[in-house]
Amino acid sequence: MGKRKQLKLGAIIHGVGGNVSAWRHPEVPVDASVNFRFYTKQAQIAEEGKFDLVFIADGLYINEKSIPHFLNRFEPLTILSALAAVTTKIGLVGTLSSSYSEPFTVSRQFGSLDHISGGRAGWNVVTSPLEGSALNYGKPEHPSHDERYKIAEEFLDVARGLWDSWEDDAFIRDKESGVFFDPSKLHRLNHKGKYFSVQGPLNIARSKQGHPVIFQAGSSESGKALAAKGADAVFTGHENIEEAKRFYKDVKDRAVANGRSRDDIAILPGVGPIVGKTEEEAERKYLEFANLVTIDKALEYLGRFFEHHDFSQYPLDEPFPELGDLGSNSFRSGTDKIKQTAKEQNLTLRQVAIRTATPRSEFIGTPEKIANLLQQWHEEEAADGFIIYSSTPEALRDFVEEVVPILQERGIYRTEYEADTLRGNLGLPIPVNRYAVAEVRG
Amino acid sequence: MGKRKQLKLGAIIHGVGGNVSAWRHPEVPVDASVNFRFYTKQAQIAEEGKFDLVFIADGLYINEKSIPHFLNRFEPLTILSALAAVTTKIGLVGTLSSSYSEPFTVSRQFGSLDHISGGRAGWNVVTSPLEGSALNYGKPEHPSHDERYKIAEEFLDVARGLWDSWEDDAFIRDKESGVFFDPSKLHRLNHKGKYFSVQGPLNIARSKQGHPVIFQAGSSESGKALAAKGADAVFTGHENIEEAKRFYKDVKDRAVANGRSRDDIAILPGVGPIVGKTEEEAERKYLEFANLVTIDKALEYLGRFFEHHDFSQYPLDEPFPELGDLGSNSFRSGTDKIKQTAKEQNLTLRQVAIRTATPRSEFIGTPEKIANLLQQWHEEEAADGFIIYSSTPEALRDFVEEVVPILQERGIYRTEYEADTLRGNLGLPIPVNRYAVAEVRG
Repeated sequence: MGKRKQLKLGAIIHGVGGNVSAWRHPEVPVDASVNFRFYTKQAQIAEEGKFDLVFIADGLYINEKSIPHFLNRFEPLTILSALAAVTTKIGLVGTLSSSYSEPFTVSRQFGSLDHISGGRAGWNVVTSPLEGSALNYGKPEHPSHDERYKIAEEFLDVARGLWDSWEDDAFIRDKESGVFFDPSKLHRLNHKGKYFSVQGPLNIARSKQGHPVIFQAGSSESGKALAAKGADAVFTGHENIEEAKRFYKDVKDRAVANGRSRDDIAILPGVGPIVGKTEEEAERKYLEFANLVTIDKALEYLGRFFEHHDFSQYPLDEPFPELGDLGSNSFRSGTDKIKQTAKEQNLTLRQVAIRTATPRSEFIGTPEKIANLLQQWHEEEAADGFIIYSSTPEALRDFVEEVVPILQERGIYRTEYEADTLRGNLGLPIPVNRYAVAEVRG
Repeated sequence: MGKRKQLKLGAIIHGVGGNVSAWRHPEVPVDASVNFRFYTKQAQIAEEGKFDLVFIADGLYINEKSIPHFLNRFEPLTILSALAAVTTKIGLVGTLSSSYSEPFTVSRQFGSLDHISGGRAGWNVVTSPLEGSALNYGKPEHPSHDERYKIAEEFLDVARGLWDSWEDDAFIRDKESGVFFDPSKLHRLNHKGKYFSVQGPLNIARSKQGHPVIFQAGSSESGKALAAKGADAVFTGHENIEEAKRFYKDVKDRAVANGRSRDDIAILPGVGPIVGKTEEEAERKYLEFANLVTIDKALEYLGRFFEHHDFSQYPLDEPFPELGDLGSNSFRSGTDKIKQTAKEQNLTLRQVAIRTATPRSEFIGTPEKIANLLQQWHEEEAADGFIIYSSTPEALRDFVEEVVPILQERGIYRTEYEADTLRGNLGLPIPVNRYAVAEVRG
């Protein structure tokens, strides 16, 4: 293996927060999820820290039990486009569902974001875990987990085909002769598949990074298969380094089995570092958030993963209840893990609910400790980089000012952007236009 | 009738331009349609001129004969979101098709733009005139004109219902008590109609202007009916003041017949003023653009209206050829008018082609002359305001610096924004939330 790439960093921006009660913290603006100044500030702090990207998650269904951030938040493509105008180097990655969208529209909107931002767009392809989504899109039922991944695969094929509609040298734009473009470099896709029929061409050209960067965020078998086949990056989550290493090796091996290089796909676990001058200060900061969550809220939050199952019907301090298949068509990898851990560690419902609602990561401590852990995960091939969760702008600022300089000093993280495209900063190749390839071959 | 509102102004931003060869003009950047700096500059000039709004048009199908701007351009929602970040007061209006979109997604994206911009979003509801659009969206056929308008009407009903999902005082956000929202003020739409089934609620609240401003841009009977029933503004186009007055009276009368006030709907014709210090200078500027169009391009452009008929087969300087029924099944009102004018004025093919490809409006001349015409159209109820076309940033700057001050001096145009929402500046009421109304009634 060649020289290892430096570690990559992203920041997920998620308004009033990742835990169900984070909005109650004194430093969190209560309208953060629809506050453009808040998003701008987070993105700009991340850019000061030379982060590769900001990340905007999404969902297509809410009800009375959804966590506050989900109830009333920006839609990813619009907020990312706005952030493109107030940043210059950082990548702009957003979640969009392949289960409830049209490839022509999605390819076009990400293509447009890619031009607006000068080649900094990324698309996290998700299949919509929430069953209720079907009700908002007039569908008789939510497609099964396997079918959603089949749809996603075809969707992504179509999107890539549409992005190649125009070869990079198609536009002559010669004012003198009046020739605007070369029609032989404009291509119709003429896709007719099981789920989509799309003629093309797309009415927007490729940006200078070729295609938006493709993220994948599911950790199920189908999710890993999709990622290994064609994603540029995987946003994942792990409880500990051993689990992360297994996942890392698994996805990289699968990528190689698909004829790709290990370097073609970046594995980026999400972590929520809490930085303190001392261990005690960091612990106190963690508890400030954890203690905001009541047991009622924790049970409600746990229910979300299991199709909004009502957990208040069970005794709190007895073993976690038997749930059968519940949850297997939504966040499958998450629900499987919750059930398994509860069984293995003989946890009560209360313990499971509190752990789920206020997960306690190991990334809590002094800047040195956190830098050491990040470096270890990177060196031991548990991660190519990290997506940083932070519940307040102050927490992100702490990370950027205290932890980033240590990583830079150690030479494992950039001190300046290498490129002005997301693909460039992630060290990913620019995809060759499929039609240009054909010409070379022909 | 009460005091007349001042006249309103919008600027349509359309990259490399409105005429088929405008991109060849020395002042037009050849990549303008995907150049964010170009769009920013145009929007900021319009905002300096205290314009009510910028307008981004759209289409969902291209082929080799499409005009240059259509081939490779920004998608409206993404570019408007980016422009929200570089402007503060001006409205942001974009075209989006109700024939090839999902109401949940569209309501959400415009809702998000409305929050990002602080209440400056507007949606121009179109039904997609281009038959080819169906091929990009896997539809067996393009719906008929009448059906497209029925879809649009239901679509708009659903969008409005979704925008009312949250009552304005639904969010308590009390950190002390831990109450984020009042569930009794969150509403499911539960819409089940002919074309759409949408449960809701929407995962974004209303902005401070209540709903995005609704534009309509079709001039057919169905278009006028849809506008009269529920649009806040109509973007139209007329060859002369008499035609404009007839249209204006027609739509206002229909609005009144729908129980609305004449003031509830703004009629905004598009005009393309060309300003010169003298009549001669203005005429010269017009010819600079008109002369860029070669006779070949003009014939091709003319052909577009007649199902891509090949006009190069006829002698150029003999009377316009007899075409029979050709063109009566596509842009019928346009093709009828071309045939009729050619006959009445005894025009040659060359004359018809050039006139069609480079239409010559009466808004060409000194700042005084153009201000007089705008004032006359406004006073005589041919228009409540105008959407200004300009082929270069310089042309828009000329209008803002030379014509706007005259309108302001005459007291018929604002010298400062009255509000910071689009609805506020257009003098339109904020729609009352349908559920809040029910409570008042109940």
